[in-house]
Amino acid sequence: MRLYDLAAADERIRFSPYCWRIKLALAHKGLPVESVPWRFTDKEAIAPTGQGRVPVLVDGDRWLHDSWDIALYLDRAHPDRPRLIAEGAAGGTWFMKHWTEASLHPVLLRLIVADIHGILAAQDQDYFRTTREKALGRRLEEASPDRAADCDLLHQALEPLRRTVAGQDFVAGSAPAFADYIPFGTLQWVRCVTSHDLLAPDDPVSHWFTRMLDLYDGLGRRAPRPSPQGAKA
Amino acid sequence: MRLYDLAAADERIRFSPYCWRIKLALAHKGLPVESVPWRFTDKEAIAPTGQGRVPVLVDGDRWLHDSWDIALYLDRAHPDRPRLIAEGAAGGTWFMKHWTEASLHPVLLRLIVADIHGILAAQDQDYFRTTREKALGRRLEEASPDRAADCDLLHQALEPLRRTVAGQDFVAGSAPAFADYIPFGTLQWVRCVTSHDLLAPDDPVSHWFTRMLDLYDGLGRRAPRPSPQGAKA
Repeated sequence: MRLYDLAAADERIRFSPYCWRIKLALAHKGLPVESVPWRFTDKEAIAPTGQGRVPVLVDGDRWLHDSWDIALYLDRAHPDRPRLIAEGAAGGTWFMKHWTEASLHPVLLRLIVADIHGILAAQDQDYFRTTREKALGRRLEEASPDRAADCDLLHQALEPLRRTVAGQDFVAGSAPAFADYIPFGTLQWVRCVTSHDLLAPDDPVSHWFTRMLDLYDGLGRRAPRPSPQGAKA
Repeated sequence: MRLYDLAAADERIRFSPYCWRIKLALAHKGLPVESVPWRFTDKEAIAPTGQGRVPVLVDGDRWLHDSWDIALYLDRAHPDRPRLIAEGAAGGTWFMKHWTEASLHPVLLRLIVADIHGILAAQDQDYFRTTREKALGRRLEEASPDRAADCDLLHQALEPLRRTVAGQDFVAGSAPAFADYIPFGTLQWVRCVTSHDLLAPDDPVSHWFTRMLDLYDGLGRRAPRPSPQGAKA
């Protein structure tokens, strides 16, 4: 299998929250994958999917896209391997996807969108600035005019996840599953585009995130991130 | 079985979000229950539980409290009847509980706390005012100084539920389960203490709530609510 994975100017930096869901999902299933660095403007490379975003997974002659559909496909194609979404867990995992995207992504995007622009390959920078400034309705550098207020909002938005993982090791229970990989991907997105931390070290969410970084021989922890000095790792 | 169920001055009005979770749960399992109206200050009646809140379910000589623990008990005690929390769904349902309580309850409480006070039995009013004003840090009548802003916040807070039930009939999937009864209880709390609606009729959340009100021969829909003229239904 081949995974098209969003990359920065430094191609070792892979930061898409949606691609991280699938990288953890493939590790969960124990399936090897060849990772192909992809940039926002490489629309041609994934044209067989009929859309322009990653993750895109190629399995033989199948071209799959959309992280949710890819997770369902992996469970369907490999029912003998550990389930990503257990029987009965689809509804709750579907809710987790929407909670993550509706409650965390907007505030996090404001906080890191300028950092993302700073690490992008030259050919992606104009595309990214144009599309994101249109969506945000303001300049990337002014996306979060009150950073402290946005950090407070993030802290509040994380409360349901905080209470959940204060009471059990993983969202899915005693072992991680796709319901964990979804919010993990989002916090890993932040980790891979910034050199600073947005979570307090004593936050139960941080403890859970540490457990997530430890999974699969430190798959998440080994991911290069920008150095404090500049964009390149 | 006997369920202690929070009641207003008019004892037909039963408004606790946590009790509604269990009334739907008992209907889901097809278990008959004798409902006992209970007021906030009736601490003696539920003293065997060692705490002062409802729902309290009495099954033979067992006294059970806490809606989450009661749901787990019902699945354990009646494994032959439809599961409230499917195998594999515990993590997602646990998250739904925390999302509902952390993201919906605070803003909804501000919007309806004065309405609740208005329908309470005389002996509950002082207790309710004292405890809630202490928690809110302000007078009940000033709990939501900017009502339009709180309504906007509620609309935003509901977005993960909105996206979830726009794509499938129930949170749990094609059939309802405890992951639905949790947010249902919360919106039913609002419905049972106010005569006005907080949701737009074309909101997908409203469509889901309508499906929920239809369940079990209209168990939720038949619940008396205050008349527009005053506290009594």
